[in-house]
Amino acid sequence: MLSEDIGSGDITVAATIPGNACASAQYRTKQSLVVAGIPVLQEIVKLLDAQIEFKAHCADGASISSGTAIAEIRGSARSILTVERTSLNILQHLCGIATLTRQYVERVAGTHARIIDTRKTVPGLRVLEKYAVTCGGGTNHRMGLFDGVLIKNNHLVFHSSIAVAMREARRHVGHLVKIEVEVRSLDELRVALESGADVVLLDNFNPEQTGKAVEMTRGRIPLESSGGITLETVRDFAETGVDYISVGALTHSARAADIHLRVTSE
Amino acid sequence: MLSEDIGSGDITVAATIPGNACASAQYRTKQSLVVAGIPVLQEIVKLLDAQIEFKAHCADGASISSGTAIAEIRGSARSILTVERTSLNILQHLCGIATLTRQYVERVAGTHARIIDTRKTVPGLRVLEKYAVTCGGGTNHRMGLFDGVLIKNNHLVFHSSIAVAMREARRHVGHLVKIEVEVRSLDELRVALESGADVVLLDNFNPEQTGKAVEMTRGRIPLESSGGITLETVRDFAETGVDYISVGALTHSARAADIHLRVTSE
Amino acid sequence: MLSEDIGSGDITVAATIPGNACASAQYRTKQSLVVAGIPVLQEIVKLLDAQIEFKAHCADGASISSGTAIAEIRGSARSILTVERTSLNILQHLCGIATLTRQYVERVAGTHARIIDTRKTVPGLRVLEKYAVTCGGGTNHRMGLFDGVLIKNNHLVFHSSIAVAMREARRHVGHLVKIEVEVRSLDELRVALESGADVVLLDNFNPEQTGKAVEMTRGRIPLESSGGITLETVRDFAETGVDYISVGALTHSARAADIHLRVTSE
Amino acid sequence: MLSEDIGSGDITVAATIPGNACASAQYRTKQSLVVAGIPVLQEIVKLLDAQIEFKAHCADGASISSGTAIAEIRGSARSILTVERTSLNILQHLCGIATLTRQYVERVAGTHARIIDTRKTVPGLRVLEKYAVTCGGGTNHRMGLFDGVLIKNNHLVFHSSIAVAMREARRHVGHLVKIEVEVRSLDELRVALESGADVVLLDNFNPEQTGKAVEMTRGRIPLESSGGITLETVRDFAETGVDYISVGALTHSARAADIHLRVTSE
Amino acid sequence: MLSEDIGSGDITVAATIPGNACASAQYRTKQSLVVAGIPVLQEIVKLLDAQIEFKAHCADGASISSGTAIAEIRGSARSILTVERTSLNILQHLCGIATLTRQYVERVAGTHARIIDTRKTVPGLRVLEKYAVTCGGGTNHRMGLFDGVLIKNNHLVFHSSIAVAMREARRHVGHLVKIEVEVRSLDELRVALESGADVVLLDNFNPEQTGKAVEMTRGRIPLESSGGITLETVRDFAETGVDYISVGALTHSARAADIHLRVTSE
Amino acid sequence: MLSEDIGSGDITVAATIPGNACASAQYRTKQSLVVAGIPVLQEIVKLLDAQIEFKAHCADGASISSGTAIAEIRGSARSILTVERTSLNILQHLCGIATLTRQYVERVAGTHARIIDTRKTVPGLRVLEKYAVTCGGGTNHRMGLFDGVLIKNNHLVFHSSIAVAMREARRHVGHLVKIEVEVRSLDELRVALESGADVVLLDNFNPEQTGKAVEMTRGRIPLESSGGITLETVRDFAETGVDYISVGALTHSARAADIHLRVTSE
Repeated sequence: MLSEDIGSGDITVAATIPGNACASAQYRTKQSLVVAGIPVLQEIVKLLDAQIEFKAHCADGASISSGTAIAEIRGSARSILTVERTSLNILQHLCGIATLTRQYVERVAGTHARIIDTRKTVPGLRVLEKYAVTCGGGTNHRMGLFDGVLIKNNHLVFHSSIAVAMREARRHVGHLVKIEVEVRSLDELRVALESGADVVLLDNFNPEQTGKAVEMTRGRIPLESSGGITLETVRDFAETGVDYISVGALTHSARAADIHLRVTSE
Repeated sequence: MLSEDIGSGDITVAATIPGNACASAQYRTKQSLVVAGIPVLQEIVKLLDAQIEFKAHCADGASISSGTAIAEIRGSARSILTVERTSLNILQHLCGIATLTRQYVERVAGTHARIIDTRKTVPGLRVLEKYAVTCGGGTNHRMGLFDGVLIKNNHLVFHSSIAVAMREARRHVGHLVKIEVEVRSLDELRVALESGADVVLLDNFNPEQTGKAVEMTRGRIPLESSGGITLETVRDFAETGVDYISVGALTHSARAADIHLRVTSE
Repeated sequence: MLSEDIGSGDITVAATIPGNACASAQYRTKQSLVVAGIPVLQEIVKLLDAQIEFKAHCADGASISSGTAIAEIRGSARSILTVERTSLNILQHLCGIATLTRQYVERVAGTHARIIDTRKTVPGLRVLEKYAVTCGGGTNHRMGLFDGVLIKNNHLVFHSSIAVAMREARRHVGHLVKIEVEVRSLDELRVALESGADVVLLDNFNPEQTGKAVEMTRGRIPLESSGGITLETVRDFAETGVDYISVGALTHSARAADIHLRVTSE
Repeated sequence: MLSEDIGSGDITVAATIPGNACASAQYRTKQSLVVAGIPVLQEIVKLLDAQIEFKAHCADGASISSGTAIAEIRGSARSILTVERTSLNILQHLCGIATLTRQYVERVAGTHARIIDTRKTVPGLRVLEKYAVTCGGGTNHRMGLFDGVLIKNNHLVFHSSIAVAMREARRHVGHLVKIEVEVRSLDELRVALESGADVVLLDNFNPEQTGKAVEMTRGRIPLESSGGITLETVRDFAETGVDYISVGALTHSARAADIHLRVTSE
Repeated sequence: MLSEDIGSGDITVAATIPGNACASAQYRTKQSLVVAGIPVLQEIVKLLDAQIEFKAHCADGASISSGTAIAEIRGSARSILTVERTSLNILQHLCGIATLTRQYVERVAGTHARIIDTRKTVPGLRVLEKYAVTCGGGTNHRMGLFDGVLIKNNHLVFHSSIAVAMREARRHVGHLVKIEVEVRSLDELRVALESGADVVLLDNFNPEQTGKAVEMTRGRIPLESSGGITLETVRDFAETGVDYISVGALTHSARAADIHLRVTSE
Repeated sequence: MLSEDIGSGDITVAATIPGNACASAQYRTKQSLVVAGIPVLQEIVKLLDAQIEFKAHCADGASISSGTAIAEIRGSARSILTVERTSLNILQHLCGIATLTRQYVERVAGTHARIIDTRKTVPGLRVLEKYAVTCGGGTNHRMGLFDGVLIKNNHLVFHSSIAVAMREARRHVGHLVKIEVEVRSLDELRVALESGADVVLLDNFNPEQTGKAVEMTRGRIPLESSGGITLETVRDFAETGVDYISVGALTHSARAADIHLRVTSE
């Protein structure tokens, strides 16, 4: 992250800031937000210059209002000015995700449903983005292709039926692996239940269909709603009694939070 | 990008798809968009499996409508299913940026103003995101701290005046380096002009103030508008005659484009 | 792997073999063994010199007798002699693991039990060693700490009971994650079953105790036997009806298979 | 080493151990062994978590009995539980090598012979394994292809005689490089001696032939015995007066030592 | 830098210096020179062994006479002896560049001209070498292909005229980028001036032609002299009034400075 | 090498050369030189753009006159212009070393002495520079600290005498390792010979002292002259009968050869 911004050197700082100048600076939000990424922020700042003092003013997961100071740093003015943009970029990105996640979580408050993320993350930031989701109160789906089986439509293309795919999968996977299957209709759901799926993903079901799926399943296994669910529609899904609602937008389309670094000469 | 998703292996594919199964697949958009990232897409697909055939159906910068096929791949079913999500993630991200950029560019059509990006990019993707901006018709600001001097308010904190900072900077930088200065008022603009700034950034000026700045400058050097400019307000700025309008949202807050991979067994 | 052996260059080859000499060479076993690692072998050979032709004479998982040729290479004599030791080291290591695994698998033939590996692998070779286990007919336990929950005694130290630990774990993990708990007595097994464990590991149970555990569980969840099980004792465990038998020695203590490279000048 | 085990995170620890829990833990052997790898152990533990205190209870090369504590760590319970397996894997591997080496060394006690290792090491661990051999009392052969010339049968295939190969080699190598030649008969040994070899490797000689080789050489240069020498036969070789006995099994086939980590909540 | 020298270990030190021996050592020059690279020296020493104390006796840019101590280290004798050569190699290289640069700078003292470097640097050391040039009193040309446009003859091959190339370039580059054009005659200079070049490089002009170029340009834009300029000829160029004189030899052909490390046992 | 020059992109080429333009280009020398680095040149060119055709016109080690074409490339104009400087930098550097080495070798023609290099190489380029020395007809000393023992004055500081250091070293090093000792007087040489040194380095002996050393040694072991030997003095040393003459300047102070790339549009 730092090297793509700094490259062969910060020429503005080299040309305008004395090497021995000292500064303090505050990361301060200009909007209300949910905090995520304090340890990452500290890591990046220390990575550039281990001598910078870092002090957090709030913890990941905290909900703060506009104007609040998130963290404070103190040390070499050159280092602080050089790290400004990169550190803000990651902090704004993670807080944006946590804040959007919190909105979804609040919309489904009082229901049984949990908001979960997807693998639709920005390339290179998977682990950090999924962490931000948990700061917002969401739960993580699998981290990648390596830690859970999800048989989607594109896999079913190669099998005559869900039942066959399920049987094949069960035969191969380890004893700690659950198998989730994506279904597009109540009929497919019935097959998935009979085939011993551990979890079923309801692909693009509307709330009414989702309600029928919940009835049909009667709590035997968890159900996950997925596909184009928005802040406007999420409550309708949650009230059907579905267990999980996955939202790709949490990670691929959250707006960056509006955070600034206010620098003071010392 | 691939390793964060694949990790120790794609266990769904290993459990459900025969090693010798073949497939073809189409990257297909579900919205109208501006294409960006075809070469990156090809690179990622080939990186996972050099044997996959890749055929682009349109070029970066093209404006396409919902339902259009962007590219097509053919080869090992396992490889195609494994690369699906990672390749979509980057393609959706870059097309999202290009599409948003194009909207800004179209809003200012007919004026002198050019839409430019900022360093507010998602960590790790700077070069690719800036490339997507050019696909959308935007122009790149500096790539990082290494290829241009921009003296911002946080730098000016360490100097008694813009004039002093400018003099200091000019003394240090190489002969191919331009110096841009951020100003917050017409008074500061006047000082910047007198100090020999090569470019001036008008920080959070409204359109009226921007118009006065354009008048005061009379084309001697380029002016850049910056700060919270949206699709709604961008035209007002453009019509003042300002040269550049920078928009951080192009890269930090574009929504991912809605693109799917449709897989067919062969 | 190659660089630790070659370092600043193979000085024997440089001093004794002409740059344009050609050779062919056969990887040939001096013992009966189960083959594992053909694709790795090819990768290493091609990595050193992409011009070398590689031809496999048998497939991973094949059981072959002493004297059989496993693969053949042809090309630059210098390259072949330089790659000899590194390629043999990895091939001998993986075939050793597959061969030992096959012996365990054959000992439990006809029973319900499956032989599985552990995380007791040689540092740096986890994925390859676990692959070799599957070549020998074994099944993989989790790949690492990231793809399965196994609550061991050392974790239970921090909880008042298995029930509490289970409840805590269930509350935190994703919906595709199974929870396995290690127990040291039938009493602990009873608690684990009541607490909703997905799998139970029987730590250092003898065959008799294992039989009782199988009875108590009545197939509700899978059971795994673990702890010092050898070729001599594995059948006794298998006959109790236990589902999985994990053997650390498969990966940490298999003897390297005896394979040589016979080089011919061309 | 750590990343292959931890990957995207230790989900058991995250789900069951509070972030602020503290622990101490002892690395304790369940067999008598020769210690090797204390500094590596410390490095790995500190790499995961620099805050963990590390205290060694014995030194590399020490011979200890079953039940002895090797080292002790204290700090974050999460870190200690996460590092457990990886740290044990490398410690068990290195102690296994040192312990086997010590057995060979003790078998030849009182003779002139020194036990040396080979390049038959587990890929990726060459330097550590060779270090473990010295902890066991063995001596290192060359580290790789870069620091010594050993003309083996596979090199001689490209030359009309040992004499020609020797002459060629001497002409090319630097003035600090010794040349060792592999011979398969007393006749070849005679040629090697006449050709000015600095060291000769007796390939698969039995003890009787080895004795004759020692006589023929009369101490002019060192001789190395190599090929299938076991704990049972090593003394017979040593008593011939040969200078070095190389044993591939030291590094490629040592059993992992039986060491556990006993964790206590603090 | 360290790993290419140390590789699998410093066998001289391991064989002759006790692990607990302590030493102090002085970096001492045997010629008069300009110092460059103190922070790099410290970095390398600390990288090998963080316990070594490092104390600089002079600062980068200082002009010192033969026999002066540059820096002093104290700590493990093994570490000091192992780091000796690598640390000297980089220090001698950088001081050599700074010293040569200072000679050029002194030759042009009193004129308007500044001595600048080129991209003719030793592969892998660009940033450090350019830093050494500034220690000697020189100024940096662009760091690489990424931070400045210089249209050279080899680019002009693809255009019908300098004017066309200039127009093309201006249309593409960002608003903080200056464009320099290489010319080979006064006629080409005239075209470059008319085309709006920001800087012009006079390729292989002799001093007389350079003087005419300065006259023709009349200070409108900076001029750079380039091509085979030596310590003997540099003053003639400087006296023409040219702004910059670039010298490739500063970085590609400076002699290493003569610096030794004097070690004392403690 | 490429990334330090290209960084975030070659903006000159992007702004002035069409993406589909083709070119051919010749690496052509402007001085007589000894060629070194053709395979490296090819590697770098192919690394940037695998589609570029590469054709060598002469071989490493060849002595060529001014104006000769060394190699020719053909392909994308953008790639050729981007790779120009980096490829020239390494080629000029290596040819410079080979050319200087050849001069030393020719000065000692007819004597027994061989010209050898040292570890005084430019950081990061050790292996390539040592290769260039062999292209010039020189011989390589050890590659680093890992492949030969050289006990220098700085090591002897820690021992009461050369004899003690030699005994210590012999006890520790492997059986393929030679031991060279640095001596500063004929008395020290006598001790070194008695202590069984394999090679002796005569540190800063003048030719007369060197002659006496050769007499005293009577060919029992090789002798190496070292310390400030120049093109002017090297013959005097060679005629004493010394075996090796090491010259640090070969690698640390050779001037870059004068080579250009002549580009033609196609």
